[in-house]
Amino acid sequence: MSRSEYSEVTEEVIRDLENILGPSNVSANLEKRQAYSRDEVPPQQWGDLPPAEVLCFPESTGQVSKLLSYADQHRIPVTPRGAGTGLSGGAVPSRGGILLSFEKMNRILELDTANLTITVEPGVITSEITKAAQSAGLLYAGDPCSGDISTIGGNVAENAGGNKVVKYGATGNHVLGLEVVLPDGSISRFGGKRRKDVTGYDLVHLIVGSEGTLAVVTKIILKLFPLPRKVIDLLIPFQDTASAIALVPRLIIDGKVMPSTVEFMDKSSLQLVKKYLNLRIPCEEAGAHLIVQLEGNDPDWLRSEILRVGDLCRECGALEVFVAESKIHRNIIWKLRKGIAEEPWAHDMPCCIEEDIVAPIGEIPSLMNFLRDLEANGGIRYIAYGHVGDGNMHMTLFTEKGTPDSDTVLENARLALYRKVNELGGTLTGEHGVGLKRRNYLPLFLDEAQIRLLRRIKKAFDPHNILNPGKITPPAEEEGLG
Amino acid sequence: MSRSEYSEVTEEVIRDLENILGPSNVSANLEKRQAYSRDEVPPQQWGDLPPAEVLCFPESTGQVSKLLSYADQHRIPVTPRGAGTGLSGGAVPSRGGILLSFEKMNRILELDTANLTITVEPGVITSEITKAAQSAGLLYAGDPCSGDISTIGGNVAENAGGNKVVKYGATGNHVLGLEVVLPDGSISRFGGKRRKDVTGYDLVHLIVGSEGTLAVVTKIILKLFPLPRKVIDLLIPFQDTASAIALVPRLIIDGKVMPSTVEFMDKSSLQLVKKYLNLRIPCEEAGAHLIVQLEGNDPDWLRSEILRVGDLCRECGALEVFVAESKIHRNIIWKLRKGIAEEPWAHDMPCCIEEDIVAPIGEIPSLMNFLRDLEANGGIRYIAYGHVGDGNMHMTLFTEKGTPDSDTVLENARLALYRKVNELGGTLTGEHGVGLKRRNYLPLFLDEAQIRLLRRIKKAFDPHNILNPGKITPPAEEEGLG
Repeated sequence: MSRSEYSEVTEEVIRDLENILGPSNVSANLEKRQAYSRDEVPPQQWGDLPPAEVLCFPESTGQVSKLLSYADQHRIPVTPRGAGTGLSGGAVPSRGGILLSFEKMNRILELDTANLTITVEPGVITSEITKAAQSAGLLYAGDPCSGDISTIGGNVAENAGGNKVVKYGATGNHVLGLEVVLPDGSISRFGGKRRKDVTGYDLVHLIVGSEGTLAVVTKIILKLFPLPRKVIDLLIPFQDTASAIALVPRLIIDGKVMPSTVEFMDKSSLQLVKKYLNLRIPCEEAGAHLIVQLEGNDPDWLRSEILRVGDLCRECGALEVFVAESKIHRNIIWKLRKGIAEEPWAHDMPCCIEEDIVAPIGEIPSLMNFLRDLEANGGIRYIAYGHVGDGNMHMTLFTEKGTPDSDTVLENARLALYRKVNELGGTLTGEHGVGLKRRNYLPLFLDEAQIRLLRRIKKAFDPHNILNPGKITPPAEEEGLG
Repeated sequence: MSRSEYSEVTEEVIRDLENILGPSNVSANLEKRQAYSRDEVPPQQWGDLPPAEVLCFPESTGQVSKLLSYADQHRIPVTPRGAGTGLSGGAVPSRGGILLSFEKMNRILELDTANLTITVEPGVITSEITKAAQSAGLLYAGDPCSGDISTIGGNVAENAGGNKVVKYGATGNHVLGLEVVLPDGSISRFGGKRRKDVTGYDLVHLIVGSEGTLAVVTKIILKLFPLPRKVIDLLIPFQDTASAIALVPRLIIDGKVMPSTVEFMDKSSLQLVKKYLNLRIPCEEAGAHLIVQLEGNDPDWLRSEILRVGDLCRECGALEVFVAESKIHRNIIWKLRKGIAEEPWAHDMPCCIEEDIVAPIGEIPSLMNFLRDLEANGGIRYIAYGHVGDGNMHMTLFTEKGTPDSDTVLENARLALYRKVNELGGTLTGEHGVGLKRRNYLPLFLDEAQIRLLRRIKKAFDPHNILNPGKITPPAEEEGLG
């Protein structure tokens, strides 16, 4: 369905929306619309995409239901949005229409210690869930790097990952139940506080990661874990990537340990972050640094585990094993790691692309070798870091200032990287999502039958294509294919 | 689509199938067809359902693809089958047609220690996967009670649960990737050895638990965990169910322990199993027994954990805490628990119904009180046992011999139970599946919008409804609704 087949948001539509939501929950202010129509991707990537035509701030599931039913009948696109911290344009309206912000549906509804669940509205900031769980002696194990600013609704929409996926899984692994509004306005409940459910297909995990294209989530029931008493971080420099990566299966097979975190930082990313944040990096000549996090209840036992793990690290070629037990020392390590993701140098790199690929863990060294060769022969530079415990690597590819035809050079590098990732059994995105940014590349990773299924599932939920149109499936959707 | 709209399996069809699979992989022998057209549910439940018209034993994905493409073109129903250990009629052909047995696709294809995965064909017996993983020092954590006889393909089709779900999740939690054949014969790969993937909707977990109604699984990539060095089981009698259940959140919140197992056995189930298996039961007057399993690497540390957990048990009202550390003692405990599930008394209970409900853990005491009242007032008796750590309770409801109108009494009890389970936030089935057995009851648990979605998803994958028709969605599907 192309833009012209949707209805415009006229004065009359705005009045109708004000009747549904109350006048204070609707805004057509241009500056505000522009601010709400972007995420963390530089908006120039999308060309001259017009902003949402109207902003809506529902306060209840009932209002969302009425709004969607209205939008469906009037064929007005609706783009749901969390905090706008996304990295793929998932919440950027691609066809104007209504932008649905959940900032007023931001209540923690229930912390249920008998059932070890927490029930929240989509607009709750993720770290508030973590804090609420902690106050009851429990752990919410979803831990995206953006947890202090992103909302749980956005985490669910993108199936956000983060630092603890290796042990606890991504956001979807914590979702037991959802209240959703379907595009026709029906309110439905998938799953619940129960921890097992085979009554029909698994709709909960079909919605998780669907980027608001299938249904609008209005309530989320999350599973909680035991809160470990003690957490220790290790910072471990290695000569090269291959020996760093080899530690992961060694830890699990010989160490019989499932670390809560295994993060990776390559030499280039550490050198950049050092320069901009003015931090000291131990063993800065090392080819790769890992952060390994272990948890436990008994501090003495955990320390003896650390000794055992330290020995394994050295057997795998670790140059050193730095143990951070105090909050101060742990913060220094995470300042390094999070500093890379915040990319303080971004303004010095006008021409760069940011990737979120995943590969089977054991293939990461091949991938890093490939990047090195690409740097040597392809005219690009790169940094690589990320959640190597689950094979999810973030990479920024960039060109030196003054490189002729930068865009073409980078696009060629991107395509070469994607081909390599695919060949290694990896995929396009591990946690940032497809959104607007990656939809054209989907056919490089998914076969035709699978893309046809994605389109048909979209149609099963949203026959008039009003929900976040223009995301996930490649553009052919709009030509009526599939 | 009603039976008459499907084609019959004629002599010509059998010849065509022999051409696709080779003559030794096709059988029309009546006795064999009857034997393969049932599972562990007494077949009289299905009335006079005719058996499959032909049995097919493919040896490769290519053969499955050709067979499905042929069946789709000729509108012949296809029912995939594992080992026939199901408890819902999921693999019982409801429309004759082709029965697709995977007993010849039973190879472990790869144990990949660098990526901590095992890749298998669907016909592999689950316990062989466990053994193969163990031989490499790893744990396959899927652990259905039927693991020694069921196949992984069946486990995936039903999202089998079992004893370790509380810590490790059900089968689906271990599935990283699937090779599937769609009804039109397309071969597709969902997921892979990667541990994160948001490239498109989560088709892997839509297939898991879909009972062979959406696609036929031909290869499965499973995730492996660290293999704990030491496992200890506790057998803990309690005065009543409420105090037994209260232990679960206490263990997690105050104990900060995630046990690998929390199993429940009520007094009646223990008394029955005692009588038939001639076993001694410690504290047999207790209202409920729990089995709690803890794992660890360091035996001394694990023993100190046991002391700590034992204290919590006593604080929750445990009458005793029996510690089983040796294989012999652990086997005795599990003989009790598994003995109940094997139901040696089944032939003495001609009139009984077996349930697989799930409720939020904290609601289990209310549910048990409800059952007690139902026994007092409803003319039925019951036993209850199961995986209480995840809220999944198995219940057998039966009438005394000679009860008039037994079937009606039991059906009324079933409906009352379902209403109560629904009211408590539970659902119809936790691990046995909907299959033929429970499809008529789906509307008691899922709203209309949700059932409509199930039908549309089914149609998105299988437009001609050839794959395991008559399962999961309620009968209206055949009347062209939805």
